[in-house]
Amino acid sequence: MRDPDSPHRSTAELAATSGEILERVRARRPRVHCITNAVAQNFTANLLLAAGARPSMTISPEEIGAFVARADALLVNLGTFDKERREAADTAIEVAAEEGLPWVLDPVLIDRSPARAAYARTLVVRTPRALRLNGAEFTALAEVEPEAEALRRYALDALTVIGLTGEVDLVTDGARLAALGNGHALMSRVTAMGCVASALVAACLAVESDPWLATVAALLALGVAGEVAAASARGPGSFAAEILDALYRLDRETLARRAKVR
Amino acid sequence: MRDPDSPHRSTAELAATSGEILERVRARRPRVHCITNAVAQNFTANLLLAAGARPSMTISPEEIGAFVARADALLVNLGTFDKERREAADTAIEVAAEEGLPWVLDPVLIDRSPARAAYARTLVVRTPRALRLNGAEFTALAEVEPEAEALRRYALDALTVIGLTGEVDLVTDGARLAALGNGHALMSRVTAMGCVASALVAACLAVESDPWLATVAALLALGVAGEVAAASARGPGSFAAEILDALYRLDRETLARRAKVR
Amino acid sequence: MRDPDSPHRSTAELAATSGEILERVRARRPRVHCITNAVAQNFTANLLLAAGARPSMTISPEEIGAFVARADALLVNLGTFDKERREAADTAIEVAAEEGLPWVLDPVLIDRSPARAAYARTLVVRTPRALRLNGAEFTALAEVEPEAEALRRYALDALTVIGLTGEVDLVTDGARLAALGNGHALMSRVTAMGCVASALVAACLAVESDPWLATVAALLALGVAGEVAAASARGPGSFAAEILDALYRLDRETLARRAKVR
Repeated sequence: MRDPDSPHRSTAELAATSGEILERVRARRPRVHCITNAVAQNFTANLLLAAGARPSMTISPEEIGAFVARADALLVNLGTFDKERREAADTAIEVAAEEGLPWVLDPVLIDRSPARAAYARTLVVRTPRALRLNGAEFTALAEVEPEAEALRRYALDALTVIGLTGEVDLVTDGARLAALGNGHALMSRVTAMGCVASALVAACLAVESDPWLATVAALLALGVAGEVAAASARGPGSFAAEILDALYRLDRETLARRAKVR
Repeated sequence: MRDPDSPHRSTAELAATSGEILERVRARRPRVHCITNAVAQNFTANLLLAAGARPSMTISPEEIGAFVARADALLVNLGTFDKERREAADTAIEVAAEEGLPWVLDPVLIDRSPARAAYARTLVVRTPRALRLNGAEFTALAEVEPEAEALRRYALDALTVIGLTGEVDLVTDGARLAALGNGHALMSRVTAMGCVASALVAACLAVESDPWLATVAALLALGVAGEVAAASARGPGSFAAEILDALYRLDRETLARRAKVR
Repeated sequence: MRDPDSPHRSTAELAATSGEILERVRARRPRVHCITNAVAQNFTANLLLAAGARPSMTISPEEIGAFVARADALLVNLGTFDKERREAADTAIEVAAEEGLPWVLDPVLIDRSPARAAYARTLVVRTPRALRLNGAEFTALAEVEPEAEALRRYALDALTVIGLTGEVDLVTDGARLAALGNGHALMSRVTAMGCVASALVAACLAVESDPWLATVAALLALGVAGEVAAASARGPGSFAAEILDALYRLDRETLARRAKVR
């Protein structure tokens, strides 16, 4: 099946490339520094470890510069966003820019707080390599419905890749657009599932210079791992453990067999 | 079996009503804003999601007002209680009062810190719809043993519902008293189990205007889910996952069959 | 098998003594106050509960003194180390010294931040009963490779016990040295595994006056629990739950049969 929007990539090609990117994460073990909310920290660290990356999590203004300088990618997540995290983000993004480090912005729940949405806009200007968010968050950010054309335009204007997660995930850099149909309803019953998706995007950016491919690889891997996990989970509690197990064991064959990419 | 203290409610009636309240949580998906301690945040969010509610967790003073105003219930938990959380609680309770939002107070470990106990007393005066605590915490708050009559009197004076958890849970609004005998010893081997009980009370208050019934429903559901989880758990690690699974799948039949209410 | 470095203790003797210490933790249920990073708090509390100890976690400067004064041991962990935690640590260590309370220092990731390493050195001077760290952290602290002789000398100079975790764990008080060969590779794929090891050392110090034996007991128990957990885990997600289950159920026979101590 060929996507008219990404004429040079079949589903099989994207699944294969995603598999390669994941294997590179396992082999290189990139360091991913995460400024993220207190609810998500533990699960994010465990997901990065399951994928093969090495997380660090400090938000202390005095040492975050040193941590980011030694990292391979950075995540800035706006959940439970307080003054300390804002200061940390400011320093971290500055160091990332100096070091040429890719970083991901996750504007968690900006649809619930106008102040947080305004702050997110000031960060988009500092050109994150990717922006991972859901439909309501995109609308709060861009003041337009989260449709394919609006996503493309926003990605072009902001010089970033958008990874919009939902029933179908959409990934675009303005030129290319992938629609990923994997995943499972239980993913919305585990807290911080979007946050860990953003962290995995950061891990893939650390080993893949094409941010669109890196974002596709991360969201595809998580969606497929979610399907595998759901097959043996008995509810959201066991699912949260199973998805880490599934990501840890995910191989190219499973990705290729299960990938639903348009 | 009829309870002389609650003459109009048999065990079967209370179990059936509790089942209805839980189904309302699943159907309406109330937003529950939680000011809670860092240890409990992740498990609390996951338990609320398993029950069907939608948690938010920010404690940032600048945005908590906006979050509470859009929520259906509020939890104020005093664990790891610092200046930032106190400021957040102050604003949150004020907004909850303006909006007529029900809120739950959980005075975690006030028996270990006189300063925290004194602070808890200032919050009780602001009339939480329910107060979830254990025996030692009640004694630190009320300066009297946690016996049925003392609980009744405190509930009447404070115009609240008390949900006292322990080997047997006691729920009273001063007029009515239920004694819930469900639960399992492993519940005391998972951190924040009391905290998540309080969060579930908040979720039930969001969909049930009788706070006594809402508190009974929450504590009964958690106790029964704990028994179901213990049947397949091999220790506290698997139990923590299993209780989320059990709550997610809990149905009226299981509640009716297992409920031990006096 | 006899260790020339610890001539009076065979593997069987150390395993038996470790089993006794763990049983004392279960029987006495010591209170362990933990100043630890946000990533580790939940898992640390759950691991202490699984072992039979009772955790508390506040870092609020206003109440930490009251909590430490009522505790049986203290953990000071430097992960995500901010100003609030530094103030808390200062008060906590002072109270611990007054009360004669044993405390453990865990200088997390000091190899990544010179400021954190410098701070750790100021804490070592205040004589923690034990120091749990990995090889890179030891090198950052002592400015020398983590070899047996260097560890011995550092322990003697600092008047502490070193528990160095890695493929083989080394425990020394300068005079005695144990090399513990238990554990499993999945332990490095769950966040905060080192942090919980330090917490378990604190729990054992609360019930055992010989800090070398307490540290051996904690690290041996965790390593053996890790092996038992790995036998049924399907990846790091289930492993994190299984290791709590295994520690909860760990008995003298399993310790004796599996212990690899030199």
